[in-house]
Amino acid sequence: MLRFVTKAVQNRGLNAVLKTRSFSLTARARLPLVLDELNPAVVNAEYAVRGRLALRAEELNDTLQNSPGTLPFSEVVNANIGNPQQLDQKPITFMRQVLSLLQYPQLMENPEAAKAFKPDAIARAQTLLKAIGSVGAYSHSKGVPYIRESVAKFIEQRDGFPADPNSIYLTTGASTAVSYLLSTFAQDKSSGFLIPIPQYPLYSATLTLVNSTAVPYFLDESAAWSTKVQELETTIQDALEAGITLKSIVVINPGNPTGACLSESEIEEILKLAARSNIVVIADEVYQANVFKGKFFSFKGVLRKLQAKYPSGEYDHVELASLHSTSKGMSGECGQRGGYMELVGFSPEVEDTIYKLASISLCPVVTGQALMECMVNPPKKGDASYEQYTAEYNGIYETLKSRAYNLYEAFQEMEGVECQEPQGAMYLFPKIHLPQRAIDEATKHGEKPDELYCMELLENTGICVIPGSGFGQEHGTFHFRTTFLAPGEDYAKRLVKFHKEFMQKYK
Amino acid sequence: MLRFVTKAVQNRGLNAVLKTRSFSLTARARLPLVLDELNPAVVNAEYAVRGRLALRAEELNDTLQNSPGTLPFSEVVNANIGNPQQLDQKPITFMRQVLSLLQYPQLMENPEAAKAFKPDAIARAQTLLKAIGSVGAYSHSKGVPYIRESVAKFIEQRDGFPADPNSIYLTTGASTAVSYLLSTFAQDKSSGFLIPIPQYPLYSATLTLVNSTAVPYFLDESAAWSTKVQELETTIQDALEAGITLKSIVVINPGNPTGACLSESEIEEILKLAARSNIVVIADEVYQANVFKGKFFSFKGVLRKLQAKYPSGEYDHVELASLHSTSKGMSGECGQRGGYMELVGFSPEVEDTIYKLASISLCPVVTGQALMECMVNPPKKGDASYEQYTAEYNGIYETLKSRAYNLYEAFQEMEGVECQEPQGAMYLFPKIHLPQRAIDEATKHGEKPDELYCMELLENTGICVIPGSGFGQEHGTFHFRTTFLAPGEDYAKRLVKFHKEFMQKYK
Repeated sequence: MLRFVTKAVQNRGLNAVLKTRSFSLTARARLPLVLDELNPAVVNAEYAVRGRLALRAEELNDTLQNSPGTLPFSEVVNANIGNPQQLDQKPITFMRQVLSLLQYPQLMENPEAAKAFKPDAIARAQTLLKAIGSVGAYSHSKGVPYIRESVAKFIEQRDGFPADPNSIYLTTGASTAVSYLLSTFAQDKSSGFLIPIPQYPLYSATLTLVNSTAVPYFLDESAAWSTKVQELETTIQDALEAGITLKSIVVINPGNPTGACLSESEIEEILKLAARSNIVVIADEVYQANVFKGKFFSFKGVLRKLQAKYPSGEYDHVELASLHSTSKGMSGECGQRGGYMELVGFSPEVEDTIYKLASISLCPVVTGQALMECMVNPPKKGDASYEQYTAEYNGIYETLKSRAYNLYEAFQEMEGVECQEPQGAMYLFPKIHLPQRAIDEATKHGEKPDELYCMELLENTGICVIPGSGFGQEHGTFHFRTTFLAPGEDYAKRLVKFHKEFMQKYK
Repeated sequence: MLRFVTKAVQNRGLNAVLKTRSFSLTARARLPLVLDELNPAVVNAEYAVRGRLALRAEELNDTLQNSPGTLPFSEVVNANIGNPQQLDQKPITFMRQVLSLLQYPQLMENPEAAKAFKPDAIARAQTLLKAIGSVGAYSHSKGVPYIRESVAKFIEQRDGFPADPNSIYLTTGASTAVSYLLSTFAQDKSSGFLIPIPQYPLYSATLTLVNSTAVPYFLDESAAWSTKVQELETTIQDALEAGITLKSIVVINPGNPTGACLSESEIEEILKLAARSNIVVIADEVYQANVFKGKFFSFKGVLRKLQAKYPSGEYDHVELASLHSTSKGMSGECGQRGGYMELVGFSPEVEDTIYKLASISLCPVVTGQALMECMVNPPKKGDASYEQYTAEYNGIYETLKSRAYNLYEAFQEMEGVECQEPQGAMYLFPKIHLPQRAIDEATKHGEKPDELYCMELLENTGICVIPGSGFGQEHGTFHFRTTFLAPGEDYAKRLVKFHKEFMQKYK
């Protein structure tokens, strides 16, 4: 028997080393697992967006439900996470009509029920059903081929350069794509990934999980959170000297939490730097539609132009992964978990490896894939849903923009608060000059000063924001990230009032 | 500036070591990444269910679409994966009505459209909407509290013992739960996980990804693939002597690929073994409703009974994770990616760690959560959907059962094929006694003999099954796994005909 075990183990490449069998087991009392017995990478991973503040917000929410009237506020406002539909934003009708029909296609055969749907939504559902079969079946692990073709067309229209549907991977939200990419490129602790500071902490958390090293580069707050190539170069140099093998640079554009939008020339500089440093570019472009000032330039588009400009091939081998999501944009469909990544310039063996990794998770949620199709291929002029779609889309855009500026203006009023003008994404990341007494108070309790600020804000107003320390910030500076999704003027007023009281308290 | 970097790095627990900056980067040509530069764990992970056979099936499918009539068959049958709705199975109407309404709640306000839905489906959608808000919003990272309460009630009704909604985690399919659990318990290569052989290769693939060691225990084919405690004990002993720290035992019940259903006393023995070996039990119970012979006993139920039987507390600290899914059962909604895991007996610090890991992925897809609610809380006698639901549910059950037995009977006819009687799950795993010439032929080409068999089956008939080597089998034996989901008698006939020709060819 043992022979068989060992052979089978070899056959499957498993690595249990099985030796002789001699003594029998002694019974002992079962002890519960403690943290020391767990994977240290999992224990050490930190994700501030759903960290201590968010957990406390959850408790307060429970208190409000179980004992109304016992807290100094009547609702918790989750400004800690970009979750528009939790805060009043309505879904886009066309998208939801299509998804509703995909879940229950019999509606299309029922003339009375079908009247509740726009003809183009019915036509789209029929096309998708034909391509998908049933949303209840596993799809291709990269996603339904038809939907990948739609995504390729969208990319082509956006950039003016073709895209290959075989290099497009539909994902369960963009976080799955991040996990695939970082897992694949991370070899060990000496593998370094350049991440912006401040960053979206999914990156640092995932790097901890895959046992690799985050190499932070600092965005320039004084220049509207722009990315400076000089800063990147010195960071790279330091990392190389410290024995780190750089694998990749992560760029979030528009920025999270900063909202900064990169210019075409900034992107070109980053691509050139990636080429000469021999590193993969991971472009997190999930906020590409959420641009309120300036213009979005895609890494793929700028790369293709750069390649055209240098026909001798200096930039032909740049490897780029670009991420997108249905959670952001104007759809804001976070809970539906739709996303895609486009891989550009990778060798077939590397693509096959990523494909295999995707196949272990079987497939991305199929309704999320269908939603992505609706997002990249919206109703066109002349389609029955076009006017409603356009009105809803523009309405959401204008609402987001005005909320961003309202909040920005509120920050202007606040003593000791500096905030960069909103450019994109769903967040503002103001700097707060905390009074020394607040800093001392926090230090006394082993707390970070910005955490103290955010915790007091939460306890007093029910507003949940995330301290800058969760995203990274220059030493000695303090920030917080808030979404600008909360409706009404009340949100900004509560912030202003709290801030005044806080500054008074610690004056 | 460097000072800030270093401080910020320390602040966030990131681990880039940044030193002095002296020389500038030299430009060099970008080279595409090769496999040696990737994470070896990702490169080495194998997942046969979507491996070489499945990739070839995909190519053949493309050929059929692009050049019809050029192959000796007119369709590819994907019997490699339990994907019922890809093979004719219809969704359960009640579930899809609820999901359709959740996607487009306006239908409920439209009297004509609402007529297309059963009143209890509308009521359920209203209840869920109240609990969820919008399926487009991120939910709690463990899943919507109301839905976790429904799952807890289901478990209580199933087992006769209460369940704690706070220890229930809704997941994106059961594979996400497997990934969370194995990642959390895997410390390094010396961490061992007992997995059955044959196994569902998600386990070996995930263990490779998390850099830990699979410790295979063999199921007893001659006794209907039962689990023998003696085999487990000797395997454990060998592993301990080899310096492996055992973390957990994975049990798949009903078995995948074997279909074997564990008896109450077998489960009790496994739990006792886990207690005296101080290891966590991971019970993959996704096929709990797919039982055709015998009865399903849940690990949780048997554990609670065992604890009651030993009031002095010997078994009070057994740690158990039980997995379920909407992909299997009679719903067969694979593409919707619904699942849950229940954690039993873990310390709060370990639960918090798993919760944090779940929060990094933000939340499981919300429609999948709602589907889970419909699955665990189906229409009751007197509800408007009850009769249709029952008819559909029983119809699917009987169809699966009769397909299982039809295929089983076909295997009885086949020369050199031995198959255990179907008990549960969606698969048969027959043993094939391959002619020596076939074995030699495969060996000559560096192929596994069962892979040769499956590849010839695919090339000749379009039927895609997975060789036993993908699941593990005793050395010198050959098997394949086929689902019994394919409709009609044609499937079995094609298999029988091919087998005869294959045996003839290599006689």
